[in-house]
Amino acid sequence: MKHLLVGVDIGGTAIKIGIFTDLGNLIEKFEIPTDVRDFGNHILSDIFHALQAHVDFDQVKGIGFGVPGPVHHDTVLTSVNLGWTKKNVKSEFLALLGREDIIVHVSNDANVATAGELYRGAAQGYQNAVMFTLGTGIGGGIVVDGKIVDGLNGMAGEVGHVITDFEHGFACNCGKKGCLETVASATGIVRLAQYRLEHHPEESSLSHVAKLSAKKVIDAAKSGDPLAIKVMEEAANNLAYAMAFVTHIVNPGVIVLGGGVSNAGQYLIDLIEPYYYRYVRPFIEHTNFVIAKLGNDAGIYGAAYMVKS
Amino acid sequence: MKHLLVGVDIGGTAIKIGIFTDLGNLIEKFEIPTDVRDFGNHILSDIFHALQAHVDFDQVKGIGFGVPGPVHHDTVLTSVNLGWTKKNVKSEFLALLGREDIIVHVSNDANVATAGELYRGAAQGYQNAVMFTLGTGIGGGIVVDGKIVDGLNGMAGEVGHVITDFEHGFACNCGKKGCLETVASATGIVRLAQYRLEHHPEESSLSHVAKLSAKKVIDAAKSGDPLAIKVMEEAANNLAYAMAFVTHIVNPGVIVLGGGVSNAGQYLIDLIEPYYYRYVRPFIEHTNFVIAKLGNDAGIYGAAYMVKS
Repeated sequence: MKHLLVGVDIGGTAIKIGIFTDLGNLIEKFEIPTDVRDFGNHILSDIFHALQAHVDFDQVKGIGFGVPGPVHHDTVLTSVNLGWTKKNVKSEFLALLGREDIIVHVSNDANVATAGELYRGAAQGYQNAVMFTLGTGIGGGIVVDGKIVDGLNGMAGEVGHVITDFEHGFACNCGKKGCLETVASATGIVRLAQYRLEHHPEESSLSHVAKLSAKKVIDAAKSGDPLAIKVMEEAANNLAYAMAFVTHIVNPGVIVLGGGVSNAGQYLIDLIEPYYYRYVRPFIEHTNFVIAKLGNDAGIYGAAYMVKS
Repeated sequence: MKHLLVGVDIGGTAIKIGIFTDLGNLIEKFEIPTDVRDFGNHILSDIFHALQAHVDFDQVKGIGFGVPGPVHHDTVLTSVNLGWTKKNVKSEFLALLGREDIIVHVSNDANVATAGELYRGAAQGYQNAVMFTLGTGIGGGIVVDGKIVDGLNGMAGEVGHVITDFEHGFACNCGKKGCLETVASATGIVRLAQYRLEHHPEESSLSHVAKLSAKKVIDAAKSGDPLAIKVMEEAANNLAYAMAFVTHIVNPGVIVLGGGVSNAGQYLIDLIEPYYYRYVRPFIEHTNFVIAKLGNDAGIYGAAYMVKS
C-alpha cells in the first residue's frame, strides 16, 4: 500500500525531511545535518539512510527534493552551498533506493517553497502563485497551473535579481547593480537606512541605534519614524514595481510574501499595494497579497506536493 | 477516423481558418469576414457554417480558437474588437457542433501566435518561449513546458504594458505612463524619433521626411543616420530590459520577435543583445533570439497546436 509522500528540503547546513500522508498531512518531520565534505558526495546517501530508519519504502509513493540551486528536469545544474556541480539527483537517488516504483522529483528550493505555500499554506486553493522570499537576499518561485516553473536553466523565479533600482545602483552579489534584493531584502532595507542616515539625515530614532537591522527599521517605521517610513516606502515601491511586472508576465492569482522581512505582516502589504496598482495594467483584477504561513516547513510541504500524483 | 486539426484565428476584421493534419501540416486555409454586428453574436455560427462547407466533422479531432482579448479556461472575459463581453466560446461552439467528441480550446490570440511559432515556426523544438509582437502596440505570449500560460484573468504575456521608460513617461493607451509599447512598438519608434528631432536636433536624413514611419527610422539607422541610430538604441534598450526581466521570471529557451518592427531582422537582434546581457543575471546561459517565421499564419498554427493531443 503506497500511501506516503516524502518531502526533502536540502539546505546548506541542515536537511529537513517530512513524511506525509498522500493527502498532504504531516505525519513526522526531522532534520539531519548537511555533510558538505567531498563536494557533498555523502548528502544523498545520508538522506537515504535516514529515511530507511523512518519509513518502509514499500509504502512510499514519491519523494520530492528541494535543492538550493538551479534545477532542470530533476538534474541540479550547480549548487554552491552543497558543493555540487551537475548532479542528476533523481537517477542517483533511484539507484540508492534500488527500485523504480517510487516517483522522484527535484526542483529549486525557492520554487518548491512556493509550491508548499500553494499546497498547504497561504496560497492554498490557487493554481497560479508567485512567491517573494525576503530574507538576506530575495528568492522567489513561480507556480503556473499548479506546476512549478523551472525554466531552461532552472533559473525561473529569480525575482531577487531583476533590476528595479536606477537611483542608487548599489552593487549586488550577482555582479550587477540595482537588483531588487539590493534595496528590498533585509540587507537592502538596512542599506537604504544607512544611506539615508548618511546622505539625507533628519531626526530619527534610528540614528541612535548601534547595530541596524531590518526589524529595527520596520519597527521604527511602524512607530511613525519619518526616516524609517521613507526607507520602507522605497523598499515597497521597488517590490511593487517587480510584482506588477511579474503580474503582466504570468498573471498570478496570489502573490505570497515570505522570509524574515514578511514578519512585518499586513503593514508591509499595505505599503506595497498602492504602488503596485500604480504600475499594473488597470484591467488586471484584484491581486491577492498574502503572508507566507509555513515558514521553514514550506520546503518539505512543496517537495511532497511535487510527487503527490 | 479523426485525423484533422482546425485552427481558428478570430480578428477584428477577418477570421482566418486553417485545416491541418494531426501532424500539423497545413492542408487548406481560408478567411471569412468578421461580422461584429449585434455584439458579435454571429461570429461563432459563421465559423461553424464556413467549417461545415470545408470539413467532415467526423474527421476532426479538435478545434482551437485564438481570440483578441483575455481568456481564462476557454472563456473569453472580454473582447472589445469583437463586441464580446464574457463568452464561453468552448461550450457555445460545442452546442453548435451538437457533439462532444471534438476537443475545443480557446486562448488569447497573442499567446496562441506564440504557440504557433513554437509548433511550426521560429521556436520549433523549444518547450519554453516568450514572444514579443512589435506592431502598432506590443503584444506577447508565454509558453511554459509546451503549454500556453493564460493567467488568472487571461492577462499573462502582456509584455507591452510593463513599465520600462522612466525618462519620457509618454502616456499609454492603457492609462499608464512609460509602458514598453510607448517607446518600442512601431508607434513608439516614431514617437522617439519625433521627440529627438524636436528636442535634440542634429543633422539627420529623418528631418526631411514628410511622414515618419518605423520602417523609415529603421532604414535610416541601418544606413548610419546618427539620430535614427540613437532612437533604435533607445527602443532596443527598453526591449532588452523587459526581455531580461521576463528571463528572470520564466527563463525561456528562446525569445521570438514578431510584428512589423521585427522585419528589421538580425539588425534588431544585434541591437538588443548587448543591452540584454547587461540586465540579465550572469549565469543565465545564452538565450536565443529569433525572428518570427509564420507571420499572420502563426495564429492558425497555434490554435491547431492547442488541440493536437
